[in-house]
Amino acid sequence: MTPEAFRQAGHELIDWIADYRARIPALPVRAQVEPGAIRHALPTQPPQQAEAFSRVLADLDTIVVPGVTQVQHPMHYGWFPSNAALASVLGDIASSGMGTLGISWESCPALTEVEEVTCDWLRQLTGLSDRWHGTIHDTASTACVTALILAREKASHFSKNNSGLQALSAPLIVYSTRQAHSSIAKAVQLAGFGNDNLRFIDEDPYTRALIPEALAAAIKADRAAGLIPAGIVCSVGATGTTAMDPVAAIADIAQAEDIWLHVDAAMAGSAMLLPECRHLWEGVEQADSLSWNPHKWLGTILDTALFYVRDVAHLERVMSTNPAYLRSTADGQVTQYRDWGIPLGRRFRALKLWFHLRLDGPDAIRQRLRQDLANARWFSAQVEAAADWDVLAPVELQTVCIRHTPKDDAGNALAGDALDKHTLDWVNQINQSGAAFMSPSMLDGRWMVRVSIGVESTEREHVERLWGLLQEAVA
Amino acid sequence: MTPEAFRQAGHELIDWIADYRARIPALPVRAQVEPGAIRHALPTQPPQQAEAFSRVLADLDTIVVPGVTQVQHPMHYGWFPSNAALASVLGDIASSGMGTLGISWESCPALTEVEEVTCDWLRQLTGLSDRWHGTIHDTASTACVTALILAREKASHFSKNNSGLQALSAPLIVYSTRQAHSSIAKAVQLAGFGNDNLRFIDEDPYTRALIPEALAAAIKADRAAGLIPAGIVCSVGATGTTAMDPVAAIADIAQAEDIWLHVDAAMAGSAMLLPECRHLWEGVEQADSLSWNPHKWLGTILDTALFYVRDVAHLERVMSTNPAYLRSTADGQVTQYRDWGIPLGRRFRALKLWFHLRLDGPDAIRQRLRQDLANARWFSAQVEAAADWDVLAPVELQTVCIRHTPKDDAGNALAGDALDKHTLDWVNQINQSGAAFMSPSMLDGRWMVRVSIGVESTEREHVERLWGLLQEAVA
Repeated sequence: MTPEAFRQAGHELIDWIADYRARIPALPVRAQVEPGAIRHALPTQPPQQAEAFSRVLADLDTIVVPGVTQVQHPMHYGWFPSNAALASVLGDIASSGMGTLGISWESCPALTEVEEVTCDWLRQLTGLSDRWHGTIHDTASTACVTALILAREKASHFSKNNSGLQALSAPLIVYSTRQAHSSIAKAVQLAGFGNDNLRFIDEDPYTRALIPEALAAAIKADRAAGLIPAGIVCSVGATGTTAMDPVAAIADIAQAEDIWLHVDAAMAGSAMLLPECRHLWEGVEQADSLSWNPHKWLGTILDTALFYVRDVAHLERVMSTNPAYLRSTADGQVTQYRDWGIPLGRRFRALKLWFHLRLDGPDAIRQRLRQDLANARWFSAQVEAAADWDVLAPVELQTVCIRHTPKDDAGNALAGDALDKHTLDWVNQINQSGAAFMSPSMLDGRWMVRVSIGVESTEREHVERLWGLLQEAVA
Repeated sequence: MTPEAFRQAGHELIDWIADYRARIPALPVRAQVEPGAIRHALPTQPPQQAEAFSRVLADLDTIVVPGVTQVQHPMHYGWFPSNAALASVLGDIASSGMGTLGISWESCPALTEVEEVTCDWLRQLTGLSDRWHGTIHDTASTACVTALILAREKASHFSKNNSGLQALSAPLIVYSTRQAHSSIAKAVQLAGFGNDNLRFIDEDPYTRALIPEALAAAIKADRAAGLIPAGIVCSVGATGTTAMDPVAAIADIAQAEDIWLHVDAAMAGSAMLLPECRHLWEGVEQADSLSWNPHKWLGTILDTALFYVRDVAHLERVMSTNPAYLRSTADGQVTQYRDWGIPLGRRFRALKLWFHLRLDGPDAIRQRLRQDLANARWFSAQVEAAADWDVLAPVELQTVCIRHTPKDDAGNALAGDALDKHTLDWVNQINQSGAAFMSPSMLDGRWMVRVSIGVESTEREHVERLWGLLQEAVA
């Protein structure tokens, strides 16, 4: 395709995107398609000849859009806010259009240096000291695997350069809680520790936060048994109920015991743009690695996960390769991001952050985050004040965990499997209607519903509408 | 940013991209900036207020573009063709604009099902049987880590679910060659095997292909020593000289010994769209996993690495997690790509492939690949026919490895460090001029130059111009 043909199609596509974004509020939130419907609407065999752009664009409307769950919809309260701010989309489009290649500083100096600068801007905006150095990973899952490999290599004195984990005289142990994201257990498995060497430390029964004394005791017991405590993953805003592990107390233990501490703030990191929220990760400066996702609440489009470390030399020693065909005269004077993560090749992802911060501006972003916090407090207050409704966990940020527990004529509250069925019935009824979408999730083995507020277009009126839908659904 | 503000800025950006792509041939190939120049041109502190789009766009021109090594330039012969076909860019723009979220089938059914269909289209286009099932990873590096974890878990009977690699009674061994991409050794280290457990098998001194008898002997020796052969990584087009390991002979050994075989065809996979090239990976059907990058020669923009396996149940058993908040009524009827790789969240990357294949059409793509092969043969013939010039390895596809070895008045050929200096002198002179770009690389401990032909805009006239530049540089 020539630049001129691209120009013409590109203008059509921009109009299509602008129209699409404008009509999202009129679309059902949850995709209303059956498994296999999209696949069956597409040819089983590849095309051979070129097709007209108009046909592809038409298929976007008729085949693809009906198969999209609208996470940019103001009535989307599922999983987490997966905002894709249009300012950041412009940066992503610039990245795609330029077609750059990141495999070394030399392959695109701007890609490396804009990433250095924007990661540093986010460092400042979240109140971190300049001892932290950042890069962009695809997701916090990948950042967590990387962090646990860093922990593994520190504790095993660089086993990777020798006979690997296989030759260790004693197993390495990782500590976290059951509230931690599923990617933590996955990372423990992928990095070779083995599931038996992941310790779930006791949590506070209401806040679901890790109990530091329990952590200290577990480490002591493992050492007494001849095992090697290697890593701690601390959740700042765990997925289920936004549980906030006490970073400072955990960091004290990690430092005293010389154990790598990774802070997973995937969702809650966005809140740290607000000075009034930073007490939630007090002690973070003592951690060894840290990751959070601007592609969640902040709104820089996927895939933008920040990964910060303090000890860059350790990171590079663990993750570096230096093949001959990538060497250049700039080596030693520049950052080689290929040595900061798993993939060699990288996109110019920093443009998304650069455009987003400059075009929207942190002031406006902070204002939006505060509005979401206020909406969550308002919603939580309505639920708490209503008969038979409960808020099940502290509302630390913008997620409210709720359950409706009706009583029978004798005044006995529904419980057990019947309560589970009731919960799934009302949430699925709303989700399937397309009017709003929330995530059913489990707490202490029973279903509850997470209402995650924070889509860029969600205003108070939408949260009011949601509360109305909930009351109707259980009536 | 509102959809209307996006519409206006988007149109400006499309024009900017079209103009930029059109003027690439007039830009220097290698970025002409010093380390730190881009970083120093940017504010050290983040903005607070929103800025005008015109300012950001102006900075793209004045700050970013001078820091881009132009891998879309027709005179770019470095590393590998990193084509970003504008047809695929349109798909990437559509993906960004829609702002979808891939964490489960339910979060965007279309994202999952278009990925299933396009991976299957590429399977058919490369002549693979329907026993293969594909997904999109970011890079072949990540695919290789995944493949080696699959190998590890097969050979260790799912150590990840128990005490990990740490509890194995005997070390697991991985086999490859020194020609294999640096990501193989990195993957061995990241997956916990340890560098000592990576065996580099002897290669044919000219073709650089793995010698199957040497592999069989190494496996036998390891078994005799009580070790556990776990994985083989076979290169179809190794980075240095496009060495082609003999897949069929290696697969026979892998099958007889029950060892996981991963085929890394990162660069050469694109050639498999041409039936006349498929003999180069004969035997691939017997491998266990396979990856190649449409984001190289084929031209679907980064990041588009295909990863295929035959045993999906094994893949999912190794890579899956099933947290409560991601469960849905569709479970069991649909593909959950989060269980096919490391990250949980994914972009709608399949749109890049879908748009590229439909808008350019495989016929035209094949024609371009064949033109590149012919240009490489022509260039190779010129080099071979010229005095003092040598082609150092078989030209299997579109990369030609060359060296110029001048003679002194007494007829003695330059050698040793003096030859290295001569090679680096002439290649760096051309690279630094911006007129063309090639990759210096090492072969048998001495510098040579890789000329990788295959940028979408490279025509015969450009290759002729390169040959002229080379002759001038050494004159």
